[in-house]
Amino acid sequence: MKERLKKQLEFIIEVDKIKQIFRKTKLFDQSRYENDAEHSWHLCLMALVLSEYANFEVDMLKVLKMIIVHDIVEIDAGDYIIYTDQVDEKNMKEEAAAKRIFGILPEEIGSELKELWIEFEKRESNEAKFAAAVDRLEPLLQNFQSDGFTWKENNISGKKILSVNERISLGSEKLWDYAKGMIEGFIEKGIIEN
Amino acid sequence: MKERLKKQLEFIIEVDKIKQIFRKTKLFDQSRYENDAEHSWHLCLMALVLSEYANFEVDMLKVLKMIIVHDIVEIDAGDYIIYTDQVDEKNMKEEAAAKRIFGILPEEIGSELKELWIEFEKRESNEAKFAAAVDRLEPLLQNFQSDGFTWKENNISGKKILSVNERISLGSEKLWDYAKGMIEGFIEKGIIEN
Repeated sequence: MKERLKKQLEFIIEVDKIKQIFRKTKLFDQSRYENDAEHSWHLCLMALVLSEYANFEVDMLKVLKMIIVHDIVEIDAGDYIIYTDQVDEKNMKEEAAAKRIFGILPEEIGSELKELWIEFEKRESNEAKFAAAVDRLEPLLQNFQSDGFTWKENNISGKKILSVNERISLGSEKLWDYAKGMIEGFIEKGIIEN
Repeated sequence: MKERLKKQLEFIIEVDKIKQIFRKTKLFDQSRYENDAEHSWHLCLMALVLSEYANFEVDMLKVLKMIIVHDIVEIDAGDYIIYTDQVDEKNMKEEAAAKRIFGILPEEIGSELKELWIEFEKRESNEAKFAAAVDRLEPLLQNFQSDGFTWKENNISGKKILSVNERISLGSEKLWDYAKGMIEGFIEKGIIEN
């Protein structure tokens, strides 16, 4: 087997481990926690179905590529809840992970995927803003379905949920309008604390 | 909430069920069976990493879209092994599933995704041929890692494995050359019967 294909297959086998990285949110039917591979697939489909709500035109191929690779670093770094205070630790672990895992690939493919991950993390391009909006929306929808399971489990206040997720509006004002209204409704009804 | 967004969210929640549809192959570490959502994510990444081996230039956005939606019908129809003889039953169930599930969406989005699924199933366009090649390659790689777990579990002969998977060559001669060599090696070593 050619050296090049060998590296590509090694990478493909390595990233299988993402299926064992569990998130803090459960499936929509709440039967179990969701893993990063399932989550990434779901975001791809959400991006396709909700693209009309982006604040701007987006290059959908780039959005999908970012989503596909965005959680690969968690194979080494693990999943941090978005409400975490350990941002520096998270960033350090994820950078080391990106270097190792994308480094398995032939150089130019690995670089391209790593750059996409960096672009996603920076949230500066339109594509990154929209991909990140969808990434934040999925756990909100899961929490809307489960009376705020993750929020209660981790003692997250309504105020914190609103402030952390407000960044959805950078990618989609319309989706944030919907999500914000839902969160406020949960607070008003006393399902979650303010 | 607007009627249109309501339909989109209903679809997003409905397709979560794909995470409960298990395939006949196990994860690369063989710890458990793989589900359709994980599989679909893995194919997206494989398509990105292996695109250079396609027999022709492909529109990668279309390839990814097809992969993302290709197994949604299994929510209703279930997963058939690719070596199945029950092709008519499978097709009938999958067509009904496509009608129901894509029908949840606003009409023009549902039609687009359904058309992509039909295109994938037909294996006529270059994008469908390459997406289908990747779809067949993943379970082969998983079986190479597990001494042919699925093949032994389901009494699939080497001859059948070769004939059913030869269609990989329609999307990628190079990937088929590799996979064919691996399967023949398994037969020679007596790991699987001819």
